[in-house]
Formats: sequence, C-alpha cells, structure tokens
Amino acid sequence: MSLARFSLNQATTKRWPMDETVAGCVASGVPGIGLWRDQVADHGLDRTASLVRSAGLTVTSLCRAGFFAAPDWKDDNRRAIEEAVVLGAPVLVLVSGGLADGSRDIDAARRWVGDAVGELVPFAHEAGVRLAIEPLHPMYASDRCVISTLRNALDLAAPYPSEDVGVTIDTYHLWWDDDIWSQIARAGEEDRIACFQVADWITPLPEGVLLGRGLPGTGCIELRRFREAVDATGYTGPIEVEVFHEDVWSRPGDEVLKETLALYTEHVL
Amino acid sequence: MSLARFSLNQATTKRWPMDETVAGCVASGVPGIGLWRDQVADHGLDRTASLVRSAGLTVTSLCRAGFFAAPDWKDDNRRAIEEAVVLGAPVLVLVSGGLADGSRDIDAARRWVGDAVGELVPFAHEAGVRLAIEPLHPMYASDRCVISTLRNALDLAAPYPSEDVGVTIDTYHLWWDDDIWSQIARAGEEDRIACFQVADWITPLPEGVLLGRGLPGTGCIELRRFREAVDATGYTGPIEVEVFHEDVWSRPGDEVLKETLALYTEHVL
Repeated sequence: MSLARFSLNQATTKRWPMDETVAGCVASGVPGIGLWRDQVADHGLDRTASLVRSAGLTVTSLCRAGFFAAPDWKDDNRRAIEEAVVLGAPVLVLVSGGLADGSRDIDAARRWVGDAVGELVPFAHEAGVRLAIEPLHPMYASDRCVISTLRNALDLAAPYPSEDVGVTIDTYHLWWDDDIWSQIARAGEEDRIACFQVADWITPLPEGVLLGRGLPGTGCIELRRFREAVDATGYTGPIEVEVFHEDVWSRPGDEVLKETLALYTEHVL
Repeated sequence: MSLARFSLNQATTKRWPMDETVAGCVASGVPGIGLWRDQVADHGLDRTASLVRSAGLTVTSLCRAGFFAAPDWKDDNRRAIEEAVVLGAPVLVLVSGGLADGSRDIDAARRWVGDAVGELVPFAHEAGVRLAIEPLHPMYASDRCVISTLRNALDLAAPYPSEDVGVTIDTYHLWWDDDIWSQIARAGEEDRIACFQVADWITPLPEGVLLGRGLPGTGCIELRRFREAVDATGYTGPIEVEVFHEDVWSRPGDEVLKETLALYTEHVL
C-alpha cells in the first residue's frame, strides 16, 4: 500500500506521547504528521521540532488557531504562526470560534472572521505559513465555529492571496452538504486547498457531540469519492486522518495507527 | 399582542392530552394548531377532527410523513394524506428519512426523495393537501433526513407545481446556513413556503441531539429576522412554534403555552 501522502493527525492518537508517536510513524513508514499545539506545548516546542526533524517526518499542518471572538485572539494567532515556523508546518488550521458572548448576529461574526484573517495575513506571509480556514459541521456553529460551509470559507478567503489563505476540507464536517462537490471543484480552481482531513461519520452521535468521529470506513461518508474529488482539482498534497473518539483514544497508539493505515488503504486510496 | 398568525405545534406540549391542548388554545386566544400523527392516532382521527373543528381551531399542518427509505413508505404517506384531509390540514410536513441501510450514497438518497415526492403528487393534488419538504439540521443527515438545506429542498420541489409541493422553513434546522437569506427569498419567488416553524438553538446540545430545541428567545437564533425575511417574500401564513425539549415537555401544558405566547410576542413578532 502506498502511504506516500498519508499523514497521521495526532488528534487521532491523542494520548500517545509525542516521542512514541513519532517513533511509531517512522516504524510504520508514515511520512507525515499533523501536530496539535497543546500536544506540542506539552512536549516542548523546540524539542518537538527537533524530534520530528531528526526522525525525517514531514509536518503537514499545525492545529489550531483562530477563535477570533477571544480577547487575546491576535496574540494567540501570532504565536501559533511562530510555532508553525519553528515546527516547519506549512499550514496553520484556523477554527473561527462561535458567536460572541450574548450575540445572535452570526453574519457579523462571519464578517469579523474575514477581517481577522486579513489582519493575520501580513504575519503569515512574512512567516511563509499558509492559513487554512476550516468550516466545521453546523452543529458547532454557535459555540465553536461560525463557518459551516466550504462555500463560506472560500468566500472569506477570496480577498487574500491564495498562497497566504486557503481552506481545510474535512470530510466529517462537510459530507452532508449537497453543494460540496461543486465547492470542492471551486476550491481547486481558486487554488485554496491547503489541508485535506479524513474522518468518518458514525451514527448515533455520542453525548457532547465532539467525539463522534470514526476511523475511515466505520461510518457513512463516501471517503474515496471525497479523495477523488479533491485530487481531481489537481491537489497532490497530504491526506491527514484526524479522528476524535474516546474509544479510539483509549486504545494503544500503535494499534490505532496500524488499523488506521489499513482502513485508509481500503476506504480512502 | 396579536396572535392572529400564531399556531401551537403540539410537539411543544407533547404530553398535554389532546382535549386539554385544544381547550387551552381556545382559552388563550390561539387560532391555530399544528398536529402530530401519533398524537392524533392516540386520541382518534375522527375524534380529533371534530374536536378541533368544534373548537374553531385552524389546523395549520400535519406532522409528519416522508421517511422514504422505509419499505412501506408509499402506503404510509398515502395514509398521512388521507389523515390530513380528515383533519382539514392544508399542509403535510415531509421528513425524508436517512440513508438506506448500509448505503453511503447520499446523492442517490436525495434523488430518491425527489422521485418519491413525485409519486405522491397525484394523491396530494387530488386530496388538496400540499406537501412540504422539510430540510433538517445536517446533524440528522445520516439517520433522519438527507435533505439538509433549504436550497436542496427547493431543488427537489422544483419539478412539481408549487400548489402541490412546497417546503417547510424551520429556524432551528436552518439558522446556521450562510446562504439562508437568499434561499428564503428564492422560496418566496418560487411560491414554495408551505410551513414556517420557529424554535431556538440552545448551547450545548443535550445527549441524543434530538431534544435540544429552546423556546423562542432562549437561544442564539435571530428569530425576528427570520420572520421578517419570510414575511418579506409575501408569506402571510401561520407561524408555528415547535419546540422539542424534555424540560419543556415535563412542565404543565398551559404554563408552557402561556410562556410560549409571551416569548413569541417578544422575540418573533
């Protein structure tokens, strides 16, 4: 099986210590890793950077910044861009955050996301880090991400150079959208695909609705069709598997990685 | 306060017996009621019809038919149309159902919804009942309703006469959509608004995600903006309040109705 484009987003193996995760990727022939800021901070930024570099792993993305309704959003996002530089991550994933406290004006919240991204563009450009606006599933619109569709993410990215601002396409968040195939094609035409993440949708959703993602093939999403649609735009970049599920997290990381690679080959490639 | 367009969808007071619900509406000056088939069946179809008729209540809709992946979908939907006739309900709300067992082909499921609605059109036309395709929130796409956007519902309705096939606009299901305002305008231009339902979105979602709807004003949806946008299309029909929440259901029906009317006046009118 070809793992040339595979990247393990470390959210999938959230409790696997950083050094074991990196060693496990190397042992399995995994070429790429998507890092999370909290896990990087736990291990140490410089230590993580040298660990992945000496292991020969490619960092495919850093998750995540954004949350533009927070008072310290600008400082935090600038720090995230600096962290991406240290880690050699070409892409910083942005989750916009929800409505401002007590506000019902979601249109205003979306406009603000566009403006805030614009304020970050000079820093990102200077740093050589591409910002990737990620639409999240509409069930998170009130509290985590007011950007719910790929169309909206592309509209907000449009004013800025595509080398500085792209989008994240995550199957879990977008599979339900009847407009998704034309928006993926549009994302390719506008050269905005900065990050491609794969997780499956399993039914029913668990309590809390944050941890319902399944490993590839365990749910109802046409994952191969997504991969083919993204590839049809000319995208040849990494394919990250990013799964959030308590049952996955509670298993040994190397076992999860092994299963993930098999399922990726069967259902995504 | 003007209740001229108000309709109590009886899902809001799910455990209020039918005769008490009808008496409570009359006592509060509520002119309309949205009925549910299971509650109608519990009370008896003919008995319910004569109860609401002698009370002078207008039946604004019957919920619900659809579920086109079920083996007996056609018989069940024809029965629902007949029930609507007996009850004097001008509108039958259709919830499409989810993916067929074991299928991942959501595009095929959507095409089938369009075809199935088409098969019902002659019966509905003959009966004088308008079918109202309801898009549900995308978190229900796999198991309850593959139609997640107003745009998709309008696309599927398009081949059929607007007097026979319309759509249901429910704030709870559609509020997150960045395309919603233009699609509401389109729904008006195409004369498809058959039913308008109001509920609020409260955060966080409860376990099971079915019962998270709030009374008007208790959540983050711009309800008045929705009502104004629907009215701006020329729609002058009923405004149903339809809330699903255990905390609402566990309270006495007359108390819930009283609060609902106050919140409707404050947040919707």
